[in-house]
Amino acid sequence: MNPISNHAASPTDTAVTDPFWSRYIELVQTTVIPYQYEAIHDRAPGAEPSGAVQNFRIAAGLAEGEFVGWVFQDSDLAKWLEAVGYSLQLRRDPDLERRADELIDLIGAAQQPDGYLNTYFTIKEPGKRWTNLTDCHELYCAGHMIEAAVAYYEATGKDKLLQIMKRMIVHIETVFGPEEGKLRGYDGHQEIELALVKLHNLTGEESYLKLAAFFINERGQEPNFLQAEWERRGRKGHFNPLPQSRLDLSYFQAHKPVRQQTEAVGHAVRAVYMYTAMADLARLTGDVELKDACRRLWHNVTRTQMYVTGGIGSTHHGEAFTFDYDLPNDTVYAETCASIGLIFFAQRMLLLEPNSEYADVMERALYNNVLGSMAQDGKHYFYVNPLEVWPQASTHNPGRHHVKSERQAWFGCACCPPNVARLLTSLNRYIYTQRGDTLYANLYIGSEAAVQLGEHAVTVKQRAELPWSGSVSFEIGSSHEVQFALALRLPGWCTEMTVSVNGEAVAFGREDLQNGYLLLRRLWQNGDIVKAHLKIETRLVYADPRVRADVHKAAVQRGPLVYCVESADNGENIAALRLGQSDLFNEYPAKNLPDGTIAVETEAFRSITNQVDDGKSAGELYRSAPPASQPVRLTAVPYYLWGNRGQGEMAVWLTTSGK
Amino acid sequence: MNPISNHAASPTDTAVTDPFWSRYIELVQTTVIPYQYEAIHDRAPGAEPSGAVQNFRIAAGLAEGEFVGWVFQDSDLAKWLEAVGYSLQLRRDPDLERRADELIDLIGAAQQPDGYLNTYFTIKEPGKRWTNLTDCHELYCAGHMIEAAVAYYEATGKDKLLQIMKRMIVHIETVFGPEEGKLRGYDGHQEIELALVKLHNLTGEESYLKLAAFFINERGQEPNFLQAEWERRGRKGHFNPLPQSRLDLSYFQAHKPVRQQTEAVGHAVRAVYMYTAMADLARLTGDVELKDACRRLWHNVTRTQMYVTGGIGSTHHGEAFTFDYDLPNDTVYAETCASIGLIFFAQRMLLLEPNSEYADVMERALYNNVLGSMAQDGKHYFYVNPLEVWPQASTHNPGRHHVKSERQAWFGCACCPPNVARLLTSLNRYIYTQRGDTLYANLYIGSEAAVQLGEHAVTVKQRAELPWSGSVSFEIGSSHEVQFALALRLPGWCTEMTVSVNGEAVAFGREDLQNGYLLLRRLWQNGDIVKAHLKIETRLVYADPRVRADVHKAAVQRGPLVYCVESADNGENIAALRLGQSDLFNEYPAKNLPDGTIAVETEAFRSITNQVDDGKSAGELYRSAPPASQPVRLTAVPYYLWGNRGQGEMAVWLTTSGK
Repeated sequence: MNPISNHAASPTDTAVTDPFWSRYIELVQTTVIPYQYEAIHDRAPGAEPSGAVQNFRIAAGLAEGEFVGWVFQDSDLAKWLEAVGYSLQLRRDPDLERRADELIDLIGAAQQPDGYLNTYFTIKEPGKRWTNLTDCHELYCAGHMIEAAVAYYEATGKDKLLQIMKRMIVHIETVFGPEEGKLRGYDGHQEIELALVKLHNLTGEESYLKLAAFFINERGQEPNFLQAEWERRGRKGHFNPLPQSRLDLSYFQAHKPVRQQTEAVGHAVRAVYMYTAMADLARLTGDVELKDACRRLWHNVTRTQMYVTGGIGSTHHGEAFTFDYDLPNDTVYAETCASIGLIFFAQRMLLLEPNSEYADVMERALYNNVLGSMAQDGKHYFYVNPLEVWPQASTHNPGRHHVKSERQAWFGCACCPPNVARLLTSLNRYIYTQRGDTLYANLYIGSEAAVQLGEHAVTVKQRAELPWSGSVSFEIGSSHEVQFALALRLPGWCTEMTVSVNGEAVAFGREDLQNGYLLLRRLWQNGDIVKAHLKIETRLVYADPRVRADVHKAAVQRGPLVYCVESADNGENIAALRLGQSDLFNEYPAKNLPDGTIAVETEAFRSITNQVDDGKSAGELYRSAPPASQPVRLTAVPYYLWGNRGQGEMAVWLTTSGK
Repeated sequence: MNPISNHAASPTDTAVTDPFWSRYIELVQTTVIPYQYEAIHDRAPGAEPSGAVQNFRIAAGLAEGEFVGWVFQDSDLAKWLEAVGYSLQLRRDPDLERRADELIDLIGAAQQPDGYLNTYFTIKEPGKRWTNLTDCHELYCAGHMIEAAVAYYEATGKDKLLQIMKRMIVHIETVFGPEEGKLRGYDGHQEIELALVKLHNLTGEESYLKLAAFFINERGQEPNFLQAEWERRGRKGHFNPLPQSRLDLSYFQAHKPVRQQTEAVGHAVRAVYMYTAMADLARLTGDVELKDACRRLWHNVTRTQMYVTGGIGSTHHGEAFTFDYDLPNDTVYAETCASIGLIFFAQRMLLLEPNSEYADVMERALYNNVLGSMAQDGKHYFYVNPLEVWPQASTHNPGRHHVKSERQAWFGCACCPPNVARLLTSLNRYIYTQRGDTLYANLYIGSEAAVQLGEHAVTVKQRAELPWSGSVSFEIGSSHEVQFALALRLPGWCTEMTVSVNGEAVAFGREDLQNGYLLLRRLWQNGDIVKAHLKIETRLVYADPRVRADVHKAAVQRGPLVYCVESADNGENIAALRLGQSDLFNEYPAKNLPDGTIAVETEAFRSITNQVDDGKSAGELYRSAPPASQPVRLTAVPYYLWGNRGQGEMAVWLTTSGK
């Protein structure tokens, strides 16, 4: 347990041993991290040169040339290093560590004498440091590098990158702050705030927390920093050099002070990264006002602006939130990175206060939106995770060009794949939260955790068969008897959970749950075994009818997995299917999908084009006779596996039969 | 009857005397034309200066200054003059005529010594004539001015504008043509082709037809003219001065020769203006291949890409067609001008061959998409005519910003209002088609037509009570007995039509119809009276299930009017309404809508947000219990009147109850 946090923490000394998840973590280690290494070295076949490493070489004076890539290209290297840090915690790998060390040396060489570190402004616009926080991601890149430094130090004990970033922060502190002559500013893309909290957690250094709080507290204050900066630049942006009529501050969540924000607006990734830091700060500083803001924003996101898959961001214009209950399935954005940020936010809310609602959302985003973004080969990704796909529309209707019907190879803006890599390699940190002498099991993922409970070191060996079956067990290991509570989460999707301790059933009702958890508080002995069985059944879920896009529709869900219907099983025109009155589903092994995958089927109807009408209107688009309907069996498969069997239509929401 | 056309024609000597339509025509005459006159003179309150007239003054050397407005700004003046021409045919107005004459004098003064007429290139880029046909609308503007010249001559007998435009055409013929040294080109925006046919019809001059055929036949041929021109310009466009990677030729319908085109693609207005000219040329030249292309494109548009309101263009990106059966109701474009162009195309298809299908579409577009675009005050318009509106989405979801929930005052690009004006003032031309000795009644609109049947002048006085009631009568006036056929269209929406001649019922069955018309062929006497009664009933219509957006839904239609459901009658969240099993509708006078309007109501259900769930999931967005449903009465009003009672939700398509 982290000695700094006096409230709650996520135990980091946990190893994932889960049959379902280990496969994906392994994929990241054996495929994604090596591929990403090639990509940042401009050696990925078929991909545009990334420039990420080469930029550092140029900035370090080791090579000549132009800056390549986005203004935030440095963050690609940072995210790779962070994922490597987590990966090395799971499994040491001297060769990988050597590569990381070499890159860290390069980063050190690229750092400027005053501590400044950013290859874009070092190479391309040396005189323009800190003049366009709105667009240019200087603090964002620093934030990712700080996260990498922390992860790498935790894995290896090597502090070179940590020292580099500490020097960078010293430099940042000479530029930003409330004092006369410094910028009362913040980055257009939040990220450094949560990173500074991580560094504070590691080091105990209060100044990092203070700087994070400064950035959070300044945001949206009047006079508006981003607005004033934009005016100073002649109303021009980095990405659009022509003067603009207006700067949309809500895109940056800088339209009002964070404590006054009640609705999630703007760029979804920026938003959830900020909320994550806000929840961190609310917990670590005991700031009740900030905690209230976190709760409000959490509720707004998860109760009015979140897809059933855990996706957020209803529009590709600005990759942004739109407004309450606006969740179009076809023009959706639901960026992978945004759901990953939502998982960060959920984890920090769990640390702020125990409530299974946070874990429910974390699980929803993880098993559906995030997992679905990666192909089974680890080399193809969705950035946009739609809930309804018509491949022809993706091609021929420009309003849906951003929706891809097949996962794409690594993109020019390589944000999502490295984010998936760092999330999956650190998945061990999301399983439990420890709060005093209570260990909350948030995710049922096979794992071995080592936790410190007061004086005693305890191991908790979890076995889980999710998502296919609901059998879970925990084995306690301890050299002494230890008094603590193991808190088992009753997932939102679960209607029935049975629990036994050492073979004796634990009787409980809903009224015995605390914040959605069953607390097993006792004097635990070495070898004690808790068994839980979560009933996993296939059932229909319904959206609040204020969600216009989903009203009169239902989605199929089985345990934590949202299902979808694909042309591969159901032929063309998925939209023409309509659920019957029955909500009974047959479950069976899916065809042409990974072993163990359960497909489900139920009765449905399909509207078909009338071949013969009244003679006159044959071939007409609109007719007075309702289309004929034929009974069919409808097959649904897990959403996270969609798009793996060639191009075809897909839908999560299916029209129901009414009264 | 036009002496030139040896096939068919639309009698122009017809006066509309219809209670329903006269009101709108009157509105155009008393409000739209005067308002538009102020607008083109930069005197419309609250509107951006149009520059249209001032540009001509500058080009004529009568004023100094910069060109103002779009590159095609001249067409605003042309469309005003065309509407004035039609209006003066309906009712002489010396004051209006004087204003028109003054503007025609100004146009004459702006014409260059070599016959060239275009204020943009005269004022702003004098050296750049005919260098950017792709974007710059020179021939398009000429086309509108030719249409104006023809209409004004037909109304007044004054040929000054006609002579101006004939000189312009002589100039155009020195620039364009198959001969060595001339451009084998055509305009990026089709329009002049149909205008040249009109001028040919008026004058009998074959060269105009030949020039129209040249433009049509060159289009899409290899080497591609627009592509080559774009390459010559360094791949730059007028509207986007940066070099582009690709010119989308399908936007201009120049991706392949017109005879090879099978699907409607690209900018919808350009497309239907072109199809109109193609149908004209197919008829006048007897070109069977072109006729086949017209039929194919007609079927593609009306059987796979047309909204139930007669709207076309499924995306605002390029105001364009997308692909078969892609008819999203919420992100729709369905521009007013495009439906007007579809009416032109339908009229020309009726001239090409009698078939009530063409008239059905004409009527559909007229009564719904086009009529709905104009507010009851004649001063506010929709450019985009959506079938589903959620005002908050129009404001907060950028993918729907183009969909307005209230009609807007005159726009910067004033294409639609003048187009509505010229259509309504020439509505008399769409009622009948004459083909030899058959007079086809395409639209049931009260009117007095004077037609020449062989040697004899005949008048046909039509009375009609549409759209509210289906009573129609025709009184024949003639000084002699005349043998001819009056062909009554059985509309697609009509299940029962009864007909009598001088009180004697005409017995007929569907098998007696010819191309959807009942032909009453006899020796007509002065005073003969035909009465028809078209059964008008409220009923549900269904889209072909391949239309993903409408499957499991129905629209309400009554006679030619498509209905819609609005918040004004049904409260918030229209999408939560679901039709019941009954298809019985009560009809009653609508509240707060123009006198005579019939509203309809039926039984339905409304999904409501569950207030209490299982305790845990209260407030959750997704739940295992289906939303509660309560019986309600659903009220629908004519679509063309939507948005007249404040901002609110609207939907044409309503979810049905299944089996």
